[in-house]
Amino acid sequence: MKKIINDPANVVGDALRGMALAHPDLLHVRTDPAIVVRADAPVPDTVAVISGGGSGHEPLHAGFVGPGMLSAAVPGPVFTSPTPDAVQAAIAQAEGGAGTLLVVKNYTGDVLNFETAAELATAEGTDVRTVVVQDDVAVRDSTHTAGRRGVGGTVLLEKIVGAAARQGTDLNGCHELAERVSARTRSMGMALTAPTVPHVGEPSFALGEDEMEIGIGIHGEPGRERVPMDSADGIVRRLLDPILEDLPFTEGDEVLLFTNSMGGTPLMELYVAHGVAERLLDERGIRVRRRLVGPYTTSLEMQGLSLTLLELDAELTAYWDAPVQTPALQW
Amino acid sequence: MKKIINDPANVVGDALRGMALAHPDLLHVRTDPAIVVRADAPVPDTVAVISGGGSGHEPLHAGFVGPGMLSAAVPGPVFTSPTPDAVQAAIAQAEGGAGTLLVVKNYTGDVLNFETAAELATAEGTDVRTVVVQDDVAVRDSTHTAGRRGVGGTVLLEKIVGAAARQGTDLNGCHELAERVSARTRSMGMALTAPTVPHVGEPSFALGEDEMEIGIGIHGEPGRERVPMDSADGIVRRLLDPILEDLPFTEGDEVLLFTNSMGGTPLMELYVAHGVAERLLDERGIRVRRRLVGPYTTSLEMQGLSLTLLELDAELTAYWDAPVQTPALQW
Repeated sequence: MKKIINDPANVVGDALRGMALAHPDLLHVRTDPAIVVRADAPVPDTVAVISGGGSGHEPLHAGFVGPGMLSAAVPGPVFTSPTPDAVQAAIAQAEGGAGTLLVVKNYTGDVLNFETAAELATAEGTDVRTVVVQDDVAVRDSTHTAGRRGVGGTVLLEKIVGAAARQGTDLNGCHELAERVSARTRSMGMALTAPTVPHVGEPSFALGEDEMEIGIGIHGEPGRERVPMDSADGIVRRLLDPILEDLPFTEGDEVLLFTNSMGGTPLMELYVAHGVAERLLDERGIRVRRRLVGPYTTSLEMQGLSLTLLELDAELTAYWDAPVQTPALQW
Repeated sequence: MKKIINDPANVVGDALRGMALAHPDLLHVRTDPAIVVRADAPVPDTVAVISGGGSGHEPLHAGFVGPGMLSAAVPGPVFTSPTPDAVQAAIAQAEGGAGTLLVVKNYTGDVLNFETAAELATAEGTDVRTVVVQDDVAVRDSTHTAGRRGVGGTVLLEKIVGAAARQGTDLNGCHELAERVSARTRSMGMALTAPTVPHVGEPSFALGEDEMEIGIGIHGEPGRERVPMDSADGIVRRLLDPILEDLPFTEGDEVLLFTNSMGGTPLMELYVAHGVAERLLDERGIRVRRRLVGPYTTSLEMQGLSLTLLELDAELTAYWDAPVQTPALQW
């Protein structure tokens, strides 16, 4: 294993300290338990939007903390859920009196630990709601999941609900909006290489010199199929077709297209894939109105990409366009 | 070779088409010759700041085209200089009557081709100046270079001079400012893995399972030394010490610290390294006043990082802080 780290046991804390130093105006970081909170938290009379999960998917979630997106993030160990007390600590720091919305990717450990934290916070008088993101159409159940996995769509939901919270939407409204975004979002990913978890020291799986995994999860969980390498056209088609059929997305729909790098893919290849996806959508009469292209939901250094489609309407588009100031997204 | 591409011969054009689709409000892209121009170019009575070079370093340079940074970028084939006529076409598109500043990384091919383009444009009545960036302290001459290579510092220069141009600084002023930034900027990089150029199909060099290359160039050119893997502390020290000694940077200096991923390095590792660099600078009494952390000057999927230090003053800091709207940098 070759990694730019010190002690593998401290990698999350070391990274968070570096992140705190890199973004002193945006973030406050605590490392025991590990939480990342907006520098100006709590924001009074504003719903706190909090997410979290195992580390190794950066910038998800800590890179999306800031005005217009998340109030706090709770990074667990690499590919491992944060504890309930860490989630509870984040709620205590970020809660501004208008309640808290927890954004949870659908993995068994995350769902359980966020639920426990929600119960504890509720018992202490905080109004807490939860949305469980399950946008991955690749597989029904998986290594760490009952039901569909939560993947790239989480970024879109966090941006849109964060904008609504900032504009004064109450907890009920934020929760309904989150469920609506979740219901309209579908994703699927693929990988060319495996990630190596620092404290494990070996690649999470083995792929042959001419193989790729279609439908991969963001922890290297198995996907739908392992197939020979294909062109960018072929790869994008293998992801886009199941996404389109699932919702389904149909002619005339207006969408946000999110072309996401799994971490190790060059931006050049990501733009090639994005161009192919736009062309294929155009051929189907599906109108791409907004785009996001980059490494936003990663799996350490894994090479590969995922595509996410969100069916837009005027309200979602306006929240997407609203200003945001975070380490990873700013406009 | 596993890459998300179609025909390797068309990879730059395919990527540029995807980029144009991803950023329709910011960029206009032409593919023959390949140039990327601000959507609102030419901006009247404003110095055009134009850069370019071989592709494969994305988002450098096309990702920095937009208000407050570059007027145009000229992407050559992968790791290969753009032709003089492509540079000339970019000048013709971006030139708004106040002259053009060419930002050229110090590689023999780039310097020659941008110089030829500058002569042709000058002959046609355009006022053209050139700044050659040579911030890499690792080696004096290299595979593609007489003198020092231009690397990560190019991003900082493009941001600062782009801000000055936007605020109405004339061509002389922009040129002087660029030379001043160049004189105050030093970088050095390292790699854990090699990149694979699409039309070559094999890694540019071989590194052992426990080896890294210190002082690597952004085309996989050899660096200072090939050594056994080290901790993040050790790696950062090996880059920072030569940078600090070179200018030199001394106690009390105020600096911008740019921690750059070579492309395939997880953001988690980049933040670990950034934290180490801030700590080591603090120990020397050097004050980090601004930061940039991310994959901004890459070498395809190469794993590794570079550090860049820029000695700040009030003017440079104000230009750095000025608003910018590009695909890769926005604030």
